[in-house]
Amino acid sequence: MKINNQDYKAIWLTGEVVKIIDQRYLPFKLVEEDIKSYQQMKIAIKDMHLRGAPLIGVAGAFGIYLAALEFKAQDLENFKKNIKKAAKELKEARPTAVNLMIDIDKVMTDFEKIQNTAEALSIIKKKSLEIWENYILECKAIGEHGFKIIKEIYDKNKRTVNILTHCNAGWIATIDYGTATSPIYYAKQNGIPVHVFVDETRPRNQGARLTAWELTENDVENTLIVDNTGGHLMQHGMVDLVLVGADRVTRNGDVANKIGTYLKALAAFDNKIPFYVAFPSSTFDFSLADGIKEIPIELRNEEEITHLDGILNNQMQNFLITDKRVKAANYAFDVTPARLISGFITEKGIFKADPDSIKNVYPEYFN
Amino acid sequence: MKINNQDYKAIWLTGEVVKIIDQRYLPFKLVEEDIKSYQQMKIAIKDMHLRGAPLIGVAGAFGIYLAALEFKAQDLENFKKNIKKAAKELKEARPTAVNLMIDIDKVMTDFEKIQNTAEALSIIKKKSLEIWENYILECKAIGEHGFKIIKEIYDKNKRTVNILTHCNAGWIATIDYGTATSPIYYAKQNGIPVHVFVDETRPRNQGARLTAWELTENDVENTLIVDNTGGHLMQHGMVDLVLVGADRVTRNGDVANKIGTYLKALAAFDNKIPFYVAFPSSTFDFSLADGIKEIPIELRNEEEITHLDGILNNQMQNFLITDKRVKAANYAFDVTPARLISGFITEKGIFKADPDSIKNVYPEYFN
Repeated sequence: MKINNQDYKAIWLTGEVVKIIDQRYLPFKLVEEDIKSYQQMKIAIKDMHLRGAPLIGVAGAFGIYLAALEFKAQDLENFKKNIKKAAKELKEARPTAVNLMIDIDKVMTDFEKIQNTAEALSIIKKKSLEIWENYILECKAIGEHGFKIIKEIYDKNKRTVNILTHCNAGWIATIDYGTATSPIYYAKQNGIPVHVFVDETRPRNQGARLTAWELTENDVENTLIVDNTGGHLMQHGMVDLVLVGADRVTRNGDVANKIGTYLKALAAFDNKIPFYVAFPSSTFDFSLADGIKEIPIELRNEEEITHLDGILNNQMQNFLITDKRVKAANYAFDVTPARLISGFITEKGIFKADPDSIKNVYPEYFN
Repeated sequence: MKINNQDYKAIWLTGEVVKIIDQRYLPFKLVEEDIKSYQQMKIAIKDMHLRGAPLIGVAGAFGIYLAALEFKAQDLENFKKNIKKAAKELKEARPTAVNLMIDIDKVMTDFEKIQNTAEALSIIKKKSLEIWENYILECKAIGEHGFKIIKEIYDKNKRTVNILTHCNAGWIATIDYGTATSPIYYAKQNGIPVHVFVDETRPRNQGARLTAWELTENDVENTLIVDNTGGHLMQHGMVDLVLVGADRVTRNGDVANKIGTYLKALAAFDNKIPFYVAFPSSTFDFSLADGIKEIPIELRNEEEITHLDGILNNQMQNFLITDKRVKAANYAFDVTPARLISGFITEKGIFKADPDSIKNVYPEYFN
């Protein structure tokens, strides 16, 4: 997608350097970071220069490639030992990021069988680029499928389609296109007038900081709202569709996503507004059934609530926004029960959020 | 209630000076302001040194008293002319504040019949103090009635009662006790262990800035959460009761309150958690039936969303928290339909949020 009218990916390989956009400075400053070692990648993952499940996954895979470059002159035994050490360390950089584990494991498939470092280097590079490309294609497919929902609304109303989204399930969180945003970009590119209400998404304000920014950079009309506003808009017919991403989806169709998603699903349900969740199939955790009972919710640092980044005198600063004595509880995600969800959009198509429909699309996981 | 362990009212008359707490600096700094003229009161109302319906009402009434003090040496004709001018200007300081109009009109009842300025001064003082005292008594009665709901929950569970509240319907918004907070303070004073989840309440953060502060100052255990969190807490049995205030209530029982209230009502309903609205009877607008259709919702300044007050280097600053290009929509209130509300708590008691129950308590308004 575009930044300053130039084509970008959120992460890319150029020669022996991995380039990323350091998201901590967005939207205030565009900072490209050159990552030249797996140790540097570990820090980028751990300190959230990067966020978004696919992006972290690819970052882990590229991290292994950087490690392979670093240790390529070593004998095979030491090379293997060091790569495995790098894999372990990279995984530990964000222990709850499932894609990080999966994608590092993908790159490491049959690693033990490898006979020489040159072969290893070439295989690791190829596999990590495949992962990178595969995520892009998945997001593109999500856009093509999801587009049908937007087009149907447009064909009925013949006016701008108003879409509400929560958090950032955008291209900057994937590699390109995004998940929830992909159908929106696809619609825009295909001449359907769209306008997005962007939930600010406290406490980390990913909506305000990232979604509003990336939509604006890609000429998609958007309006920022505080997280309290969506219900009011829906009551007054100002939202045609809610589109969100997902962090984890159970085989029953319950969805863990950024805290507050459940409240928007309730409002959409109450006002008979379609509520769709867009994600790549890898977001399914088929081992889980009841999302509310079974998905553990991360309790993050209180300072994410009591402090906030902002600009003063053209400088980005971190401010205290509450009484010093405040105790805060910072639950990062909530679970939206399947009964409130109109449907899922994955790279495989659109289907209902119920066990039978899910089984129908992914029979291999149901025995 | 208490600040720094001293008894306070949010506004009080001492000699010929009206004292207020300038809420713009809370919780960062306690600033008492001496108001010595109606012009100064006008600024305090207009620039939101004061907020909260009853508080603004009393401020208007006291403003008339300050005007009477200022003009008491004039002849009766000029005195009356200037008081009426002051009344008009004070009302214009916040044109949407219904209590401001009502309370100024109350002070001005039979004003034309007054025969001398000394009599006028004494009547105006008496009436404005009556308004002040009446609000305090109403809030106290709300606390006594609402206490029964909290006690019932405590008697059933025999553990700390967890209450969620939105925005600030606290003592600092009234004169004492508050509306939604009054039952909480009453419970605390009567030995019922209570804990309050305080919604931050974006964009103006009245929950974070005022409610958390006043509960802490009065030794009520509380935890600050972002507005996105309530649904998750309710799904997990962490909330026993939702208690909020109201800005306007229709004769059907629909409630206009701070934006986001509707989302919490939906979550409470979905999780079978009691959702009560506490307010003085004057908050009813019996001329309205359908709140969603008939209550106009104020669209406030975008800067309340894009900028925020915070502390940096011990100084309160206002900083930009979004991309400069952001367009924001700042709806101040939403309407919670009666069907989601368990009941109302007013100074007259507890009753259901339906037309028949409302008519039963306020028959004089139904013909």
